[in-house]
Order: sequence, then structure tokens, then C-alpha cells
Amino acid sequence: MTATFDGGRDTGLLSPVRAGTPVEADVADEAWLQAMLDAEAALARAQARLGTVPAEAAAAITAQARADRFDPRALALVARETANPVVGLVQVLTRAVAATAPAAAEYVHRGSTSQDVFDTGAMLVAARALRRIRADLDRTCAALAVLAADHRDTLMVGRTLALHAVPTTFGLKAAGWRHLLLDALARIDRLLDGGLPVSLGGAAGTLAGYLAYAALGDGPQGESGTAEYLDRLGAAFAEETGLARPLLPWHALRTPLADLGAVLSFTAGALGKIAVDVQSMTRTEVQEVTEPAAPGRGSSSAMPHKRNPVLSTLMRSAALQVPVLATGLTQSLLSEDERSAGGWHAEWLLLRECLRLVGGAAHTAVELAEGLAVRPERMRDNAHLTGARVASERVAAVLAPRLGKARAKHLLTEAAAEAERDGLQLAEVLAALPDVAAHLGAEDLRDLLDPAHYTGAAGPLVDRALKR
Amino acid sequence: MTATFDGGRDTGLLSPVRAGTPVEADVADEAWLQAMLDAEAALARAQARLGTVPAEAAAAITAQARADRFDPRALALVARETANPVVGLVQVLTRAVAATAPAAAEYVHRGSTSQDVFDTGAMLVAARALRRIRADLDRTCAALAVLAADHRDTLMVGRTLALHAVPTTFGLKAAGWRHLLLDALARIDRLLDGGLPVSLGGAAGTLAGYLAYAALGDGPQGESGTAEYLDRLGAAFAEETGLARPLLPWHALRTPLADLGAVLSFTAGALGKIAVDVQSMTRTEVQEVTEPAAPGRGSSSAMPHKRNPVLSTLMRSAALQVPVLATGLTQSLLSEDERSAGGWHAEWLLLRECLRLVGGAAHTAVELAEGLAVRPERMRDNAHLTGARVASERVAAVLAPRLGKARAKHLLTEAAAEAERDGLQLAEVLAALPDVAAHLGAEDLRDLLDPAHYTGAAGPLVDRALKR
Amino acid sequence: MTATFDGGRDTGLLSPVRAGTPVEADVADEAWLQAMLDAEAALARAQARLGTVPAEAAAAITAQARADRFDPRALALVARETANPVVGLVQVLTRAVAATAPAAAEYVHRGSTSQDVFDTGAMLVAARALRRIRADLDRTCAALAVLAADHRDTLMVGRTLALHAVPTTFGLKAAGWRHLLLDALARIDRLLDGGLPVSLGGAAGTLAGYLAYAALGDGPQGESGTAEYLDRLGAAFAEETGLARPLLPWHALRTPLADLGAVLSFTAGALGKIAVDVQSMTRTEVQEVTEPAAPGRGSSSAMPHKRNPVLSTLMRSAALQVPVLATGLTQSLLSEDERSAGGWHAEWLLLRECLRLVGGAAHTAVELAEGLAVRPERMRDNAHLTGARVASERVAAVLAPRLGKARAKHLLTEAAAEAERDGLQLAEVLAALPDVAAHLGAEDLRDLLDPAHYTGAAGPLVDRALKR
Amino acid sequence: MTATFDGGRDTGLLSPVRAGTPVEADVADEAWLQAMLDAEAALARAQARLGTVPAEAAAAITAQARADRFDPRALALVARETANPVVGLVQVLTRAVAATAPAAAEYVHRGSTSQDVFDTGAMLVAARALRRIRADLDRTCAALAVLAADHRDTLMVGRTLALHAVPTTFGLKAAGWRHLLLDALARIDRLLDGGLPVSLGGAAGTLAGYLAYAALGDGPQGESGTAEYLDRLGAAFAEETGLARPLLPWHALRTPLADLGAVLSFTAGALGKIAVDVQSMTRTEVQEVTEPAAPGRGSSSAMPHKRNPVLSTLMRSAALQVPVLATGLTQSLLSEDERSAGGWHAEWLLLRECLRLVGGAAHTAVELAEGLAVRPERMRDNAHLTGARVASERVAAVLAPRLGKARAKHLLTEAAAEAERDGLQLAEVLAALPDVAAHLGAEDLRDLLDPAHYTGAAGPLVDRALKR
Repeated sequence: MTATFDGGRDTGLLSPVRAGTPVEADVADEAWLQAMLDAEAALARAQARLGTVPAEAAAAITAQARADRFDPRALALVARETANPVVGLVQVLTRAVAATAPAAAEYVHRGSTSQDVFDTGAMLVAARALRRIRADLDRTCAALAVLAADHRDTLMVGRTLALHAVPTTFGLKAAGWRHLLLDALARIDRLLDGGLPVSLGGAAGTLAGYLAYAALGDGPQGESGTAEYLDRLGAAFAEETGLARPLLPWHALRTPLADLGAVLSFTAGALGKIAVDVQSMTRTEVQEVTEPAAPGRGSSSAMPHKRNPVLSTLMRSAALQVPVLATGLTQSLLSEDERSAGGWHAEWLLLRECLRLVGGAAHTAVELAEGLAVRPERMRDNAHLTGARVASERVAAVLAPRLGKARAKHLLTEAAAEAERDGLQLAEVLAALPDVAAHLGAEDLRDLLDPAHYTGAAGPLVDRALKR
Repeated sequence: MTATFDGGRDTGLLSPVRAGTPVEADVADEAWLQAMLDAEAALARAQARLGTVPAEAAAAITAQARADRFDPRALALVARETANPVVGLVQVLTRAVAATAPAAAEYVHRGSTSQDVFDTGAMLVAARALRRIRADLDRTCAALAVLAADHRDTLMVGRTLALHAVPTTFGLKAAGWRHLLLDALARIDRLLDGGLPVSLGGAAGTLAGYLAYAALGDGPQGESGTAEYLDRLGAAFAEETGLARPLLPWHALRTPLADLGAVLSFTAGALGKIAVDVQSMTRTEVQEVTEPAAPGRGSSSAMPHKRNPVLSTLMRSAALQVPVLATGLTQSLLSEDERSAGGWHAEWLLLRECLRLVGGAAHTAVELAEGLAVRPERMRDNAHLTGARVASERVAAVLAPRLGKARAKHLLTEAAAEAERDGLQLAEVLAALPDVAAHLGAEDLRDLLDPAHYTGAAGPLVDRALKR
Repeated sequence: MTATFDGGRDTGLLSPVRAGTPVEADVADEAWLQAMLDAEAALARAQARLGTVPAEAAAAITAQARADRFDPRALALVARETANPVVGLVQVLTRAVAATAPAAAEYVHRGSTSQDVFDTGAMLVAARALRRIRADLDRTCAALAVLAADHRDTLMVGRTLALHAVPTTFGLKAAGWRHLLLDALARIDRLLDGGLPVSLGGAAGTLAGYLAYAALGDGPQGESGTAEYLDRLGAAFAEETGLARPLLPWHALRTPLADLGAVLSFTAGALGKIAVDVQSMTRTEVQEVTEPAAPGRGSSSAMPHKRNPVLSTLMRSAALQVPVLATGLTQSLLSEDERSAGGWHAEWLLLRECLRLVGGAAHTAVELAEGLAVRPERMRDNAHLTGARVASERVAAVLAPRLGKARAKHLLTEAAAEAERDGLQLAEVLAALPDVAAHLGAEDLRDLLDPAHYTGAAGPLVDRALKR
Repeated sequence: MTATFDGGRDTGLLSPVRAGTPVEADVADEAWLQAMLDAEAALARAQARLGTVPAEAAAAITAQARADRFDPRALALVARETANPVVGLVQVLTRAVAATAPAAAEYVHRGSTSQDVFDTGAMLVAARALRRIRADLDRTCAALAVLAADHRDTLMVGRTLALHAVPTTFGLKAAGWRHLLLDALARIDRLLDGGLPVSLGGAAGTLAGYLAYAALGDGPQGESGTAEYLDRLGAAFAEETGLARPLLPWHALRTPLADLGAVLSFTAGALGKIAVDVQSMTRTEVQEVTEPAAPGRGSSSAMPHKRNPVLSTLMRSAALQVPVLATGLTQSLLSEDERSAGGWHAEWLLLRECLRLVGGAAHTAVELAEGLAVRPERMRDNAHLTGARVASERVAAVLAPRLGKARAKHLLTEAAAEAERDGLQLAEVLAALPDVAAHLGAEDLRDLLDPAHYTGAAGPLVDRALKR
């Protein structure tokens, strides 16, 4: 194939949620190439530690394992012939090593297979991106903790099924956002702590190639020797890469990919929850929060007056994409035989985009959380918008022992409907009802119906949440 | 709406993977109804333990909380008016309690909200189904452990990208299947151990209703009283249901649903991996395993000679469905405000089908694993099918130090191609090459190319895997 | 397996969007059973028309092909042994026919295969449900046409990225909803008009079984006879069922399933668009529309004052589920060989739920559209909420020739920000600017900034849309 | 944000299915940028045709609308501030025009909005990519037609549920592949013929901005003038771009995106069906087809003997990804208000990847179909592998009138099981049965059981399919 076009640049033009965010550098083609080279080098060093590769050879390989020496586009084009980029990478790396240390070239990719290198590289990329993401989530959580504490008692209305429900506080909402991000962090940490293993299986998961080469020298003898070599090689490779050591080769046992899909989907969704709430509270009629302002930010190509909530828009765009992308990662578990013909290959782009979108969204969230402008007065005004109907539940509770629960609720339903229809305060309507007036005076009603007095356990819940 | 049709029976006609399996009883409409009633009763008892509901009332509510007293169809029809079945359930339950204990009726659903009851019920259903699933996975793992041990050294060919790769053993394959199911079990156990919480938030997540009713009597005083009441109510509700106690109300923080989606997807995929492998090995040209036979099983409506691999077919059908269903559960994280208008409601059917499909597939897997007929002689024959080309990697390794790695590999590639083209044994072709003959005698070649001698670390890997 | 539980009832408890709606009867297990029986009977009659089955036999089979004579649960249980319910169905149908017309029993399922019967049945079910859905969409479109016409010029604000953008009319919004439903209708009609074919392939898509039986009598001779028989049998089967005639057997060419997935997803999404818009306009702060009221409708188990927008909630719940379910139908295209081991079986439940959810949502939409209460005064008030900033674009356009486009836009941006910050009308701010005052008097500004004067082509667009 | 990293190159390293294929140039960031510029230029020319923009201005804008003059990375970075790249693009385009034709700069993006430009650009990109895809599908269909005709009568075994079923021909399989691709082509053509419209709505779908600017000059008067202007502007814009003219602005009515998702999913699935079949037939034990050979193609980094089926692997990898990506496009229908805050933005990357993956897979399919090596002798051998059991259905049909259908089938089932168990030809077993021998001689049996004599209507079906 003559490919005159070079594939172009990966500028993020269609994915502003990540354009210019740090995760881009972690997951770009160049970074993936470097990670595969890191895997090759680590594998050589691990074998050197076991004495089956000369230390100088491992050093020479490591010295050449630099992405800037190779052309990812050329590797991508060659990958069409072999269905993965490692076959070509081994060739050019071998050539590069041979140019400076001919003897060392013999030890490149020794005993290995494409999937060991690619998957180890993928885990390195994922680990780097996840560490970046967790740092941004940490910062966002810190900012949300401040919001939650500052607004522990800031009255706002709770909304269910699009309508005003009962009062709550903005602190509890912010604490909930943080809680969800802490859930995401816990899942990320679980992955970072043992869930991202090196891949070490050889051609079809028996490590036979590694053993065959090891056997050339003073290699492992017998089954117990093999078992020991296996253990030591895995441990050394894991140490050299900083990744976990798997119990079994996982070429066709795709737990790490399914887990990454689940965790990235979760994180995207947690960030998306914040986004949809911010959008709900930003609506022109609501105006309880405003995204952090910056010159030119949120402007429209058409409307001079617009200051669009762009940060939450970007975050939501990621949250809408990641779960569907991650579905493909989950489906990778259905990997036939010792290596799937297509299943494995379908994971790569999906994983990268999941990492990049979540990384972009997490970075965006920092700015949103750190700069969110909260408007307590609007929250209070909105909480009173229904003329205290949001506290109708409370009056029903108080009247229940006197009138019976069902009758009390029915009475409140009717009164609330009348108040809404006629644009009255609920207290007025209630005061005019003999059944109510017999038990509750005007003062009682005013007190009971004050939304600020009916925030339940919002404050203590915030306290509890912030202890996490 | 006049609904003359009653919705029909849920026979599993379109979902044979679960028809007649035990999970059906755990997740049927009747079971869900019972679980919601269990939630109502547990809530009353929990409040009784705190003294805010009379013990007799709690007992009377518990006595009536039996699904067979209510009509789920009637509740489903009423649910169209309120968008969830709890509003109607509270009415009929209240009426039933009132019929036997009028005073107790006042305490039904006291301070509560539909979502508390529905979500607690859903978690009860999920917990019951997951425990069933884990028992079936346990049995399957036990059967696979036997297969792995018995066939630790049973030669078979490893297949990658649809072609013979290098030798492996069937024991390693079975150990891999078990490994994946143990991964699923670990994820299920994590959920069962604290991941399935009661829902306790009241109308909009502040527990205000619970507190309002508690305040009628000798209720909590002040913030510290509230905090303590909150703690005790949550603990009591958790104890009464056997579910976990959440840190925060989770009406709009859908971690449990996202986790269930991830875990059920994972489990379906792990079972699906076994299924696709069994299908690959069952193919007429391969015939290395056969599904357990039973009279009439696997018969076709057309072809007398057919004995279809129905168990793996059913398992794969579940594995193809669950990940897409679960995507909807993950997306539930994007829950706006304090309760989503539609997001919450979209979870129910998806969750039930995920549980039911995985439950059916897990049950099917027990039978498959316990009865799988393994044919070592076919495995051996197939491993020799390519005239020892599957061990070409090994000869390349042995020749590498003599000829250089690249030249050794090239020589083997050419020889393998010639052997394939001319229908020869690889050993014959190699023996005729001076470069090879100089280093390896016919005996050496025969030994090196014997697939049974090139299973690498398969045995030790099985040993290691079985220690998990 | 001893299955003491009978699978339970399919009441819709977890799927209120469809509980009690007419589509339930179209797609229930009983209906699916009937459709498969219809396929068997139609096949016998088709063969009778060609003279290869006696007419009396076809009549006897047709007479017995009644779902109420068979137990779908028993068939579901047996289906676990054969992975589909047709093998068992043929047995019981044969027995039933034999009981009344022994000779006719020989002709049941003659030459056929399970997939021919199941898939033809599935297409019958789909066709019935789609016709039901299209009728409900038709009614909804009619109601929306009235809304669009009545409110052709009813001012409301257009909202983009959650904020007020520029004015529009409610008529245009309603016309857009109708437009989307007409798109759905067009796609449904395309399917109903030739997209839902009978399945006629025999054991593996060659029709060999049909021909073998035909050859017993005065069957087709030679290739041209075969071709003619093939044509005539397909035509007769299509006529007897009312389905389309496929060009090729489609056991493993799953166009109809992928198309159904696409069309049902589209329809769910179109209905969902209406739902999210209604929710947006129903919000307590917005209150521009109210769902049709009914006693008890929209009530909460907790809050007396609530009248939740349940119809749009139910519709949105369907719209969130169907696209993920339908993904599985699309994936069915990856059907290996002449019949997939699991791929085919994964379609059934997904298809049924897609049909049922869309059918429920479409039925719900009729009530929503016919009863939606529109509040023009709230729309007008909301349109003025920003003090005319929603018309800032217009003033920028008018000033552009005088000040240059960039400068005009910048000036308006600043003025809008000042108006917002200080709670002023935009006209006031502008009038105080010399650059503006030089060109536009107070009267001009008032006129230019009146939202009601800046609805663009909303009216003509409504006219155009209603002509469709 | 300081972004020192430039986003990197888009080399296709993780997506070899498209690396180096022509579609890359159609959908790269640079191409998307050009398409948006094409939209801006076409809009200016359309307005010029109506007299509301000077012809020279339109020419000057068109002259500057060249992607190589702008930096997509800079636009991507700016897009984070406005959530789309058009706001920034308008600024730099205006500046570029101003540099050469200051007066013309006033007419850039006149009356327009970001979404009009972005969506029109997206449709241009989609149309270009789809035309490329359809050309590749055409070539593939042509090659498949040759295969189907050449192998109209080439015996092979049909496989269902992983097992040999009844005989068929390879021609019928190839005809089925072509049939599915023709279905894809029909869906693509439907889209290209009216389904990809320009976007023309202005800020919120009323075209008010366009009209406001038009009104500055000799613009449209009154409603009928507006309606006419609207018609003419839409027609002119459609002509200038070559896209369709929509009935209504579709900012929040996402039919084109949902349709693109459906069609691209379908096409990916159709190509994927070919891939899974080729893989099934390529398996080492089957070897009925071989992918086209090329030096180095299909090589492994580990195993010298490997010649992996890389083309089908790449195609399948695309088919596994596209349906999940497209789910996000379908979900875009749930677009709230007049422009979704996040829903719109979630479409872009998904659409591009769907186009690129399908484009790559379609290009790969050309090579696969044109070079597929078919091995009729292996097909014949495999068809005989079961000792004629694949024709058991036929003997059952012949015996049915003599023994009764049920008894005939039972007899064949037993005989086939015995033949399989004892490794006999089915004919031998049958000949030894008195019930059979009474009706069929050895010659009859040999003839009836010859797989080559039981291909049913395979030949006529191929003829019929090739007439399409």
C-alpha cells in the first residue's frame, strides 16, 4: 500500500475535553511506543538478572529503547501486515541495537511474543495515566471537601424527578460528589495495587520460548527448576517495570482489561454526575452555581451574552462516551483459544480513548471544583419558590398522630395543590383549615414550613462524609 | 387504562439459559415484591429498636409483609401512575396491616420514600442471587480444578489467531478457566462484603422524614442527637436486612448499581470465555472435548446426527447479552439532582436480567464443567497435525546461538513453509538443510520437535494456579 | 433438573413503562409461542399450495397450531436441552396433530429447521408490535401537530448548553418533536414494507430438507425445477404469513435483526427527546408545561405536594435502555458459519425487550402529547427573565454594519455582562453607551430587544414542518 | 493551561485496521478542519447567491478557507474554553480574511452559529468517507461475485452450532457475504441520497441571526418573505456543499447522527461476518481458505511457522469496536433543549472513529476478497469427514413415508451415533439395518448419502443472489 498521507496530527480537535491536558502525553502513540520499548528493555534486564542474558546486552537494549529513535507511523503501517505493531518494532529495535552492539541484538525480545510486549506496554501506559488521574481526583476531592464544609448548612432545595422535593444543603450535595470520586479513587487504587500485571506468557502462554532460550545456557533443570525460573523471571520483570506479577499468563484471560473498563467507566460516570448537577444548577432559571469565569470562556460564536458552562459540558461529553467504549473492553473477556483473532486487537483504541477521556475529564474537574461560584442567596430564594410546599412532608408527619397518617397526607396534598393553583403560601391555606388550625397555630406552621428548618440530617451527613 | 391482558407468564421461553435454573426464583417479580416488603418490615423493626415505632406495630407490619398477599400485576399497573411500584405497595400494605392491627398501619413506611424501599429491595434481590451464583461458581471451580489436575500434562496444541501456535496442556487451559472464575468470585465477594447497602435517605437524601416522625415522640435532640439517631437507625436497618450500611444516602450516587453491572459483566464474560473455548474444541474437525451427554440433549429439529454443544451455546448467549445490558447500569451514574427522572427507572429491568442471565449461565457451567468429556488422544493427534511445525520456535531458539537469531528464525520460516507446502514433517525438511545438519542430528531434531517435549512451564503453571 | 418454580408472572413490576400497555400482549411468551405455531401452520399451508403436503394435513396442522394448547414453560425447560424452543415445540405439535389426524402428523415441520420457525415467528411478533407502535406514533404525531399549530407563535426561549439562548416558539419545538417521530415512522414503515422476511433455509440454508421431502412426491426436477420450487415455496410462505420474501436464507445474515435494533433504538431515542424536553420545561423553576393530570398520578410515597412528571419519566427510562439492548442486536451480525452457537440465541430476549419498551413508551407518548398542558404566560415570563439579553445577537447584527462585526459583538458582550451583573435590562445599559446611542434610539432598542420580535423563522418553519 | 505537548501524531499505531488506508485522509483532524472551513465558505457563497453577502466577500472567504493556513492544535486548545472548535475558528478565519480583504471579514460566519458550521462540516466528512467506503464495498462485492460464481457448485459442509450440519457450497457462502455487503451499500446509498443534510439553524434553530443580517440590506419582508428566504438559503447552502437540505434545523433532532451510527454499525458487522467465517475456515484443522499471501505478512514475533490470517483479524477488530462506539451516536437522540450540553460534544470522536474503522475494514476487505485462496479439495475432504452423517437428514426424509417421520428420524439418530462411536461410514451402519435394507439398497444409500448430491438449492440460490 502506498500511503502518502501520514495519518495526521492527534490534536484533540474533536475531543476538547482532553485537548491540552496532561494525560495526552501519557497515552499518545509516542507514549505507547515508548511503553512497548520499556517492556522490551525491562524484559532483557529481567533475564539478565537471572543470568540468561548478558548484562551488557540488556544495557545495550535499554539504551536503544527510546521512542524518539523510531517512527510510529512506519510501525503502524507495518502492523497491517502482522496485525500488531510489535513484530515490526522488534525488527527495528534489533537493527538499532545491532548498530551499536551487534552481540546484544541477539537478545532482543528473547523468548518473547508480541502480546507480552504489547500488553505490558499497555499496562505501563494505563498505570501512568491512572496515576495522573488519581492526582487530579485528589485535588478535586480536596476542593469539594472545602465546598462541603463551607456550605454544610447552606440551604438549597432537593430536586427529585425534576421537581422541588424537600430542602437539603449544598454542602451535602458537594459531599456526595466527593463521596463518588472517593469511590472512584478506591477503585483506581485497587487497580494500581496489583491489578495491572506484566504480561509474560511466550507464544501461547506456556513460557516455552523463554525456557528454550534459558536452556541454551545454564538454564533451569527439570520441573522444579522450571517452576523456580518461572517465579524468578516473573518477579524480576515485575520489578523492572513496576507492574504486578500475574499468577498465570493472561493473553486470553482478560481480567486487567475488563477491570480497566469498569474502573474508567465508573470514574467517568462519577465525574459526569457532578457535571449534570452543575448543569442543572446553572440553568438560567436556577442560577445557583456558576462555573469559574475566565476571559473568553463560555463564549458563543453567535450570541454575545452567552457564558456557557463549558467545563461541565466537556465533563459530561466524556461521561457519555466512556461507558460505551468500555463495553468493548468488557467484551474482550470472550477471547477464544490462547489468543483471540480480533478480540485482542479491538481493545487498544478503546482503552486509550477511555484513559484519555477520563484523564481529560478529571483534569477539567479540578478547575471546576476549585473555581465553582456558589450563590447561597439564589439557593435560598429557589428553596422558597414553592411557598413552602417543599416542607409539606413535615406538616404531614406532625399531623399524622392527630389525624392519622393517610388523612394527614391527603389533607396536605389537597392544600399543596390549592396553594399551587392559587399562588398562595402553603401556610395560608393550612391555617384556614379547621383540622389543621385545631392543632397548629400560625406560628407553629411558619416554623414547621420554614425550609431552613427542614434540612434533616444534612449537616451531620456532611460531617460523616468528610471523615472519609 | 383497561388492561385485560395480565402480562403473561415469565417462562423463559426466549431465555433458555435461565429457564428452570434456581436464580429464577430469586429475581422473579414475586421475589422482587417480597424483597420490597422485607425492606418495609425491616425498616419498621429498625425503628422499633430505636423506640420510634412500637414493637407490636413492627411485628404486625412484618406479619403482613408477605408477597403472596398482594398482586404484583395490580402494583405494576398502578406504578404507571407514580413511575414506581412502591407508592401503590405502601397503600395495599397499609390496608392489609390496618385490617388486622389498625394502630400499626400508622407506622407503615414511616418517614420513608419509595426509593429507600425499592433500592433496599433491589439489594436484597441482588445479594440473594449473587450468593446463588457464587455457589455455582464454586462448584464449577471445583470441577475445573479436577480437570486441571487430571490433565496437567495432557498435551494439546495452543491456538493463536485461529492457527496452531505452540504446544500447551489441557490442564493449563482448565486452570485458566478456573482462574478467571476465581477472579469473578473475588469480585462477587467484594460486593457481598459491604458493597450492597440498604438505602436510607428519605424524600431527598436528608432523612428529614425519618427524623420528623422520630421527633414526634422521644426523638433525637439537636445535631448530636440527630447524628446519633442517624447512626443507630442505619445500623439497625442494616442488621435487620443483612445488608451493608452506607456512609451517605445513595439515591443519586449509584455506586452499587455500577458495581453490580461491572461484576455481573465480568462474571458473564468469564463464563463466556469457557464457552467459546469449549466451542472451539468441540468443532467437528477438532473434537477434543464433548459436552456431557444426556438423552435428547443437543438434538436438532432437522438433522438426526446432530448433538449440539448446547451448554456452551447457552452460556455464550448470556455472555453476549450481559455486557450490553450492564452498560445501562454503568450509565446510571449520570443521575441528575437528588433523584433522576428516568435514570433510576432504567436500572430495574437491566439489573434483573443481568442477575438472571448470569445466574443461569453459572448454573449451566456447573453441568458443563462436571461432565465435560475430554479426549486426550484427539488432542495429541491434533497437536501433531502440522508435522511438528508447532515446535518450530524451539528449533529456532536452539539454532540461534549458532546461526544468529534472525537467520535461525528465517531458516525455520522457510522450512516450515516448505513442509506445509509439500506435506512433509518439519524434521525431514530441516535434516536436509546443511546449516541445520551441521548442528543437529536426526535424533536431536526428533526430540526437539516432539510437541510433547515443548509444553514449557505448563505443568508448573497448573500447580501454581491450583494453589490459589 | 427439577424446577419446582414456574418462572413466575411477567407483570411489568420492574418495567412500568410497558405495564398494561397493548404491546405486552403482542410480545409475551404466549404470543411468541403462537407466532411460532403460526409459522409452522403457514409452512404446511405453503407446501400444500405447492402440492407437496396434502391440503387436509395442512388444515389439521393449522387447527392444532394454537398456543393455548401448549405449555410455554414446559417448552422453555426442554429448550435448555436443545438451546431453542422449537425442537420441543415440534414434538408436542406433532403429538397434538397425531391425536386428531394421524396422517397429518407426518407433515409437521416437514423439511424445516428450528431457525426457520423461530425466526419467522420472531418476524411475526415484530411486525405485530411495530404496527401497534406505528399506530401510537401516528396518534402522538396528530396531537403534536395540533400543539405545533396552536402554538406556532407562542413565544418561548430557546435554550442551549443549559442557558437561555435566543427566542423561539413552542410551536417550533412541538413541530420538531413531531418531525423526529415522523422520522421514526418512516423507518418503521421501511421495515414493515419488505424488511421483515420469512425465514426459509432448512438445516443449513440450502433448503435441502424441503427439497428432499418435495422429491418424495411429484417434486421439482433438475436445477430449473429446483429454482422454480424455491421461488414458489418462498412466495407461498410469505403470502401465508404476510411477511416479506427474502432473496437468500438469512440464518447467519442477520440484516433483519440489525435493522430492528436500529429502528427501535431510533424510535426510543425520538420519544426520549420529547421526554427530556418535557422534563426540562416541567422543572419547578421553569413550569412551562405540565403533564396531563389524573387523580393520584405523580404522587410520591413521601411528599404530599408532589405531582411528578411520570409519563416523561417512563418514556425516558425506555430511551435509556433500548439503545444498549439494541447494541446486542447489531452485534448479531457477527454470526459465524451457517448458524451461530450463541449469537442467534442472544438476540431473542433483547429483541423482545426492545419491542416492549418502545411499545410502552409509544403508548405513553400518546397520553403525554394529547394531554400536555402548555403555559404560554410562563413561557413569555421566562423569555423575559434575562432582561432581553436573549436578543443581544440581534442588536449585534444591527450594529455590525456601523461598528464592525467584531466590535459590535464585543460591545454587546460587555453590555450583557454588565446587565447581568447589575440586574439591569439590556436596553438600559445599551442606551447609556454613546456608540449605541449614536445609532439607535430608546424606541429602536426596545423594539429590537423584544424577545417576541426575534423569533426568526419559527413560524414559517412550523408551517413547513406541518406540511410533511 | 500551558500545553507543551502537542497532542502527538495520529499514526494508527493502536488501530492497524485503518493505518495507511485512504479513509484516514478523509477524517483526520486536518480534514475535519477543512470541512468546517468548506462549510463557512459555502455559507458565504450561499448568502452571496441571495444577495445578502457581496460576491467578492464570499470569494475572499472561500480563498482563505484552507486548512493548511490554520493550526488545528491551537484551535483544539481554544476549544476547551468554548466547548467547540468553531468559536476559535471563526476568529482566525476572520483575521485571515481581514488580512487580505478587510471588508470581507465582516461577512465571515454571518448570522451563523457554531453548530451549523460544525455539523455541516461533519456531514461533509461523513459523505466523503462514505463515498470512499462504498467504492471499497463495490470492489469487494465484485470479487465476491466472482468467488460465488466460480464456486457455485464447490461442495463444502455447512456448519451450525460449531458442528457439521448438511452440505452446502462455497459459492453460496460467498454469495451470502456479498448479499450482506449489498445490504450495507443500500443503507449507505440511502444516507448519501438525502440523509446527510447541511445544518442551518442559527443560534437556536430559528435562523434569526441569518434573517437579522439579511434584514440589514434588501432583506426578506414579512412572513412570506421570510419563508421564501429560508427556502432559498437552504437550497443554496445545500447546493454549495453538495449535501441535502433539511426540512427543519436539526441541532437537537439528531436523526443524521443516529442514522450514521446505524449504517456504520451495520457495515462493520457485515464485514465482520466475512471475517469470522474466514477465520473459521482458516483454522489449522479446517484449512479451507487461506488469506492472500504477501512477503512477511502474518508473521509472528515468536513463531517461525506462523502465517496468521491478519486481514480477517483486522476486520473483526473493527467489527467488535464499531457497534459499541455507535451506541453513543444513537444515544445522541436524547438531546435536551435546543442544544445539548455534552450530548452534542460526545458525538464527534465517536463518529470519526466509526468512519475510520469502517473505512479501514472496508479497504482491508478488498484485499481479502480479491486474494482469498480457496481450497476445494479441503472443502470436499472436510465434507466427508463424518462419514456421510451430514446427509442423515436426507435418508430420514426418504424413509419417512415408509417408516413414519418420527421413527425414521429416530433410526437415523441411532445409526449416526453408532457410526460416530465406532468410526464407521453411515452407509455401512444403515445397510445392516433390516428396516433400511428393506427399502434401500447399498447403491441407493451410497447415492443418497453422497454429500455432493445433497447441496439442495445452493446452486439456484447463488444464481438468484448474483442477479441482485
